[in-house]
Amino acid sequence: MLKEIWQRRLQLVEKTLLEELREDSALNAKLSDAMKYSLMAGGKRLRPVLLMAAADAVKSDGDKFVTTGAAIEMIHTYSLIHDDLPAMDNDDYRRGKLTNHKVYGDGLAILAGDGLLTLAFEVMLRQKDVDADKLVRVVREMSDAAGPNGMVGGQAIDLMSEGKLVSREVLREMHMAKTGALFKAAIRSGAILGGANENQLEALTLYAEKFGLAFQITDDILDVEGDEKALGKPVGSDEKNQKSTYVTLLSLEEAKKLAIQTVDEALCALDDFGDEAEFLRELATYLLARNS
Amino acid sequence: MLKEIWQRRLQLVEKTLLEELREDSALNAKLSDAMKYSLMAGGKRLRPVLLMAAADAVKSDGDKFVTTGAAIEMIHTYSLIHDDLPAMDNDDYRRGKLTNHKVYGDGLAILAGDGLLTLAFEVMLRQKDVDADKLVRVVREMSDAAGPNGMVGGQAIDLMSEGKLVSREVLREMHMAKTGALFKAAIRSGAILGGANENQLEALTLYAEKFGLAFQITDDILDVEGDEKALGKPVGSDEKNQKSTYVTLLSLEEAKKLAIQTVDEALCALDDFGDEAEFLRELATYLLARNS
Repeated sequence: MLKEIWQRRLQLVEKTLLEELREDSALNAKLSDAMKYSLMAGGKRLRPVLLMAAADAVKSDGDKFVTTGAAIEMIHTYSLIHDDLPAMDNDDYRRGKLTNHKVYGDGLAILAGDGLLTLAFEVMLRQKDVDADKLVRVVREMSDAAGPNGMVGGQAIDLMSEGKLVSREVLREMHMAKTGALFKAAIRSGAILGGANENQLEALTLYAEKFGLAFQITDDILDVEGDEKALGKPVGSDEKNQKSTYVTLLSLEEAKKLAIQTVDEALCALDDFGDEAEFLRELATYLLARNS
Repeated sequence: MLKEIWQRRLQLVEKTLLEELREDSALNAKLSDAMKYSLMAGGKRLRPVLLMAAADAVKSDGDKFVTTGAAIEMIHTYSLIHDDLPAMDNDDYRRGKLTNHKVYGDGLAILAGDGLLTLAFEVMLRQKDVDADKLVRVVREMSDAAGPNGMVGGQAIDLMSEGKLVSREVLREMHMAKTGALFKAAIRSGAILGGANENQLEALTLYAEKFGLAFQITDDILDVEGDEKALGKPVGSDEKNQKSTYVTLLSLEEAKKLAIQTVDEALCALDDFGDEAEFLRELATYLLARNS
């Protein structure tokens, strides 16, 4: 089931992304190209898919909220472009392709990131079929997740800790902000749009926290024993950059155990949900088997 | 009158900015410092002041909307930090102080910009006393102005045209996007928050367009004959960077004439307004006399 739904929704997201890019055919063709280059570079669209699955879980239809899903993918892509810059992680490859600044130069890459971040807000706010109260809540989830206490804050901690040994506590705080916050925003937004009640929202928030943690642990594991071709980037980059990871702080073995335990906790958070949360369950389980 | 109101509101904006920064004491102290460094570097707070003046003009009280004003100042500051980066304009000084990246390094400067942009949305969206429909309209004005068809697009054109001779048409389009769009968003947001009707909004939009153009022309004039100390940055930087400006495309004399004519058109747009638009009128006239 997982693969079929994912594939169908991935295509829905791609179609929506292209439509929204066209809608906004930017003032400058080169800027448009740079934005499109990274946005359409073949990501898994995990965040939009999670958003839609969370709406399903509260017995709504996730497909209806693909526009907000597309917006969150823009925010994710902006963060990748900026993180890859020479002034940050200085990465040359991403998803098997040259990074944005390697193709367009640092200046335009910074602007492509800025453009995608602002476009995400435009795209969310120009929706006509979502009522204003929900829209304000959802856009606020997104800005909080992206902001100085979310992704930007996490990336700042990351930048400051390169080459330093950090504690498991700091590592956890950094990842919760840098990647966890946007997963949480995706899942909470889907739940809010789908009409979740308070109990459901709380349970899905817990699921989201566990999902984000498990994602990060498995990400660290992949950087050690993943396949470069499937990953589309060199493995061992954490070691090269002297980054603390769950693998370096624990051990490969312990990291794998923690991943399994964390996915288990994510599944437990869904105990009160019925079959409609099956896709969310499968998405958590998938983390343990992913190869990219 | 102009100076007193401006000064009082400037202080109100500064107070609000500091409160909002404290509210969000970012995850990372260094990131907070970098954001605060540029945000509290003593700008004129022209955009928030315009926003408040536009609310006054429709017989509301501009002071009530200082939070949205503070948010627009964050968006403005983000754009300055990114524009100053080595990959863009490569400026060392801004408002008489070292630019953000000269103090904090390129990586943190990029993040400080990203942080201020996202914080602006957070700040707008966490307001409790603005109804959701108005909030959606205003936040949309802001994201459209900041996005790929606004500031980011204008900056991309600017980046592409360095060292090239551009036509007056391209120059106008670039400035309308790069600086004009945010002036327009400030004034329209103030009008919307203040409860403007359609005719008022249209007139204030025209005022905003003329204001933005006059601002740019006088900016180009100041880069030629301004006082470095008052400006807080070296004059002649446009020439150094081989930038096309209204002065290089026309002549100093013709640029001055065009500035006067444009301010006149801004004032005409306010013909149907009474005394309550007096501050907006003074703000337009001020452009012709400003020294920074």
